[in-house]
Amino acid sequence: MKDVSNFDDFDVGFDIPAKPGMDEAEIQTPCLMLDLDALERNIRKMGDYAKAHGMRHRVHGKMHKSVDVAKLQIALGGACGVCCQKVSEAEVFVRGGISDVLVSNQVREPAKIDRLARLPKLGVRVLCCVDDPANVGELSAAAERHGTEVECLVEIDCGAGRCGVTTTPEVVEIARAIDAAPGLKFAGIQAYQGAMQHLDAYADRKAKIDVAVAMVKDAVEALKAEGLECDIVGGGGTGSYYFESASGVYNELQCGSYAFMDADYGRILDEKGERIDRGEWENALFLLTSVMSHAKPDKAIVDAGLKAQSVDSGLPVVFGRDDVEYVKCSDEHGVVADPGGVLSVNDKLKLVPGHCDPTCNVHDWYVGVRGGKVEVVWPVSARGFAY
Amino acid sequence: MKDVSNFDDFDVGFDIPAKPGMDEAEIQTPCLMLDLDALERNIRKMGDYAKAHGMRHRVHGKMHKSVDVAKLQIALGGACGVCCQKVSEAEVFVRGGISDVLVSNQVREPAKIDRLARLPKLGVRVLCCVDDPANVGELSAAAERHGTEVECLVEIDCGAGRCGVTTTPEVVEIARAIDAAPGLKFAGIQAYQGAMQHLDAYADRKAKIDVAVAMVKDAVEALKAEGLECDIVGGGGTGSYYFESASGVYNELQCGSYAFMDADYGRILDEKGERIDRGEWENALFLLTSVMSHAKPDKAIVDAGLKAQSVDSGLPVVFGRDDVEYVKCSDEHGVVADPGGVLSVNDKLKLVPGHCDPTCNVHDWYVGVRGGKVEVVWPVSARGFAY
Repeated sequence: MKDVSNFDDFDVGFDIPAKPGMDEAEIQTPCLMLDLDALERNIRKMGDYAKAHGMRHRVHGKMHKSVDVAKLQIALGGACGVCCQKVSEAEVFVRGGISDVLVSNQVREPAKIDRLARLPKLGVRVLCCVDDPANVGELSAAAERHGTEVECLVEIDCGAGRCGVTTTPEVVEIARAIDAAPGLKFAGIQAYQGAMQHLDAYADRKAKIDVAVAMVKDAVEALKAEGLECDIVGGGGTGSYYFESASGVYNELQCGSYAFMDADYGRILDEKGERIDRGEWENALFLLTSVMSHAKPDKAIVDAGLKAQSVDSGLPVVFGRDDVEYVKCSDEHGVVADPGGVLSVNDKLKLVPGHCDPTCNVHDWYVGVRGGKVEVVWPVSARGFAY
Repeated sequence: MKDVSNFDDFDVGFDIPAKPGMDEAEIQTPCLMLDLDALERNIRKMGDYAKAHGMRHRVHGKMHKSVDVAKLQIALGGACGVCCQKVSEAEVFVRGGISDVLVSNQVREPAKIDRLARLPKLGVRVLCCVDDPANVGELSAAAERHGTEVECLVEIDCGAGRCGVTTTPEVVEIARAIDAAPGLKFAGIQAYQGAMQHLDAYADRKAKIDVAVAMVKDAVEALKAEGLECDIVGGGGTGSYYFESASGVYNELQCGSYAFMDADYGRILDEKGERIDRGEWENALFLLTSVMSHAKPDKAIVDAGLKAQSVDSGLPVVFGRDDVEYVKCSDEHGVVADPGGVLSVNDKLKLVPGHCDPTCNVHDWYVGVRGGKVEVVWPVSARGFAY
C-alpha cells in the first residue's frame, strides 16, 4: 500500500498526477479523475435504496481497489463492509481499516489459504466462498492452526459460468461440511449472476435473475430443512440489484460499478427503457487525457491509450461532447476524430472508460475534484495486489 | 520506482509473487514469469543481427518498462540505449542508470517539457520527437532555462496514423527550426511504422514499409540539401526490422516485443511463411496462472482475468498444450475449456499473453526463472509512470 501521509514526498508529474489544493487545470495526464459530488450522490443513492429495501450492502471493492472509496461507501452509504476477489486485496482492505471483508471467490492455493486464515487475528470478520468439499478441510485446518474462525459461503453458479456448484444437493453437501469443520462457520450462500449484468434490456436481465432466484430459493429451503440458516444470501450488481432486493431470498447486495459508472454499463436500459447513466447513476469516474499532437487537421492524438485503460468492453466515450469521438486506441495513443478541427494541443478531454474495473487497475491514483479544485488524491490501494 | 535492495522487506504472496532462490512451483499466481534462457537468446540474437547489419539498436523500453531488462539488452545485445513513450518513463530509465534515452513521442504539456529538459543535467543524452513547429520554442526555452541540451527528431507519420507530419516540406521546416533553436540539437528523424507490424503476411508488411522508406529517403535527402545531417534515422519493430535494416536509409532499430514475444505477434509470418514464434523468436514471457475451481467437469477456472492481462489483441494461448484452451476472460477469472477433464485445482498453466506491452503494464514484478529455480525478481520499474 502506498503511504500518502505526506504529500511532500511525491513529485507531481513524476510519481503523482496532482496534489490536493491544485486547480483542476493543473492535473497531469493521463490520470483517473473522480467527480466527488457525483460519487457521493451515487453512494448515498444506493445506500438509501438498500436501507429502504431491508438489504445489507457489501460494496464490491474489486471495482475501485480503494480503501478511501470503501470508507466513503461505509460512511455515506451505510455499507456493512466490502467484498473483493483476491486474498491480497482482502489484506489491503483489512490493513486499511475495513472490518468485514468477504473474498467473493475461491481460495485454494495453500499459501493463500494460510494468509486468509491469519486475517481474523486482526479483529475483523473474514469470509470466503467454497465450491468444492475438498476445500473445506484445507480452510479449517488453516483456521485451527491460527486459532481463528473463517466464515464460509457456498458459491452457487447461477448463470455466470465461472466458479460455483450448480445443484442444491452439492450446496447442502458443502454447507454441512463447513458446519462440521472446527475452524469454520457456515455463513450462507454466494450467488452473483455476473453474466447478465450487462444485458441491455431490463426484461432480459430479469429473466436471467428469475432463474437464479429459483436456484437460490431451492438451496436456502433445503439448507433450512437441514437446520442450516443462511446469515448471508449475497449477490446483486449494478444491473440487477432491484431484482435481488425484490426476490424475498437475497439479503445482501454486492454492487460495485454504480459508484463510478462506465460507458458499457451506462448503455444498459432501466425498466422505462432509459440508459442507466441518464438518470439512475452519474458518471463519477473520468480518464483525463490531453491532446499531444494535431499534425493532421481532422484528428487529434491524445495521451491515453491501452496503458491507461482497458478496452475489453469497448472504447471510451468523450464526456459531454458530440463534436469529437475517440475512435482508436494503441499502446500509448488515442486517436480522436475531430472533423471540425475544434481541438488544440494541450486541450483536455474527460473520457468515460469502457469498463471501470480493469481501467482502475492500471492506475496508481484517483484525483478527486470538487468545484474545479483537487480536493483529495487517493491511492488505488489494492492495485497490483493480485496474489 | 520500487526499491528492491532488500527482499526481506517483502512478503511473498502479499506484495511480491516470489523471492530469488525459490522453486518455480512456489511462485504465487497470477504473475509474469520470464524464461531467462529464452530471454537472453532473443536479446543476443537481435543484438547480433543489428551489429551484422550495421544498425544501432535502441530497444523499446515501453514494452517491458524494466530497467533490469533494458540493462540486459545493453549488456548482452549491444543496445545503445532505450526509447520510451512518456517523460515519466524516461525519468525512471535515467534514474535507473540508462544513459541514452529517447522519448519517441511528442512532449507538449509545459510541466512535462520542463521535466524533460531537466534530465540532461544528470549527464545523460535525452531526445524527443517533434511534429509541430510550435513545440520547438517551448522545448528550447525549457532547455535554456535549465542550461541543458535536448536533442530532437522530427517525427514522420509514415503510415501509423498517429503523431507525425506527412510531407517533406513540413519535416524540413521543423528541422530548421530545431537547428536554429539555442537549447536544442537537431538529431534526425523518427519514422516508426507501427500500423503494419502485425500484418500477417511478410509481403504485406514489406509493401507498407516500402512506402515508409520512400518518404524517409525523400526527407533525408531534402534535409541534406539544407545542410542538415541525420545522426539518427530511427524506426523498425519486431515485424519489420529486416526491412529497415536493408533500406539504406534507416540506421537505428527500435524493437521491443522480440525480447518477450506474445500470442498476437507470434502469429505473423516470416519470409518463408513460418510463424515468427516457431523459430525466429522464443516465448520468454508467460502469465503464470493457477486453477482455482473445477466445479464443472469440462471447464477449469483460473486466476488470471482482465486484471492480469490485456485482451485488446486477443485471448492468451496456453503454452505447450493443445488439450486445454483459454476461452473466456472476465475481471478476475479465466475460463479454460478442459474437455478431457485433465486439469485439477492448483494446477498451473503458462499463458502466452495476447499482447505483451499492456499486459506487462498491469503487473508490478517479473519473476525470472532458470532451471526450475527463481533466479531474479525484477520490478516493472516504470509501471504506473504515465504522466
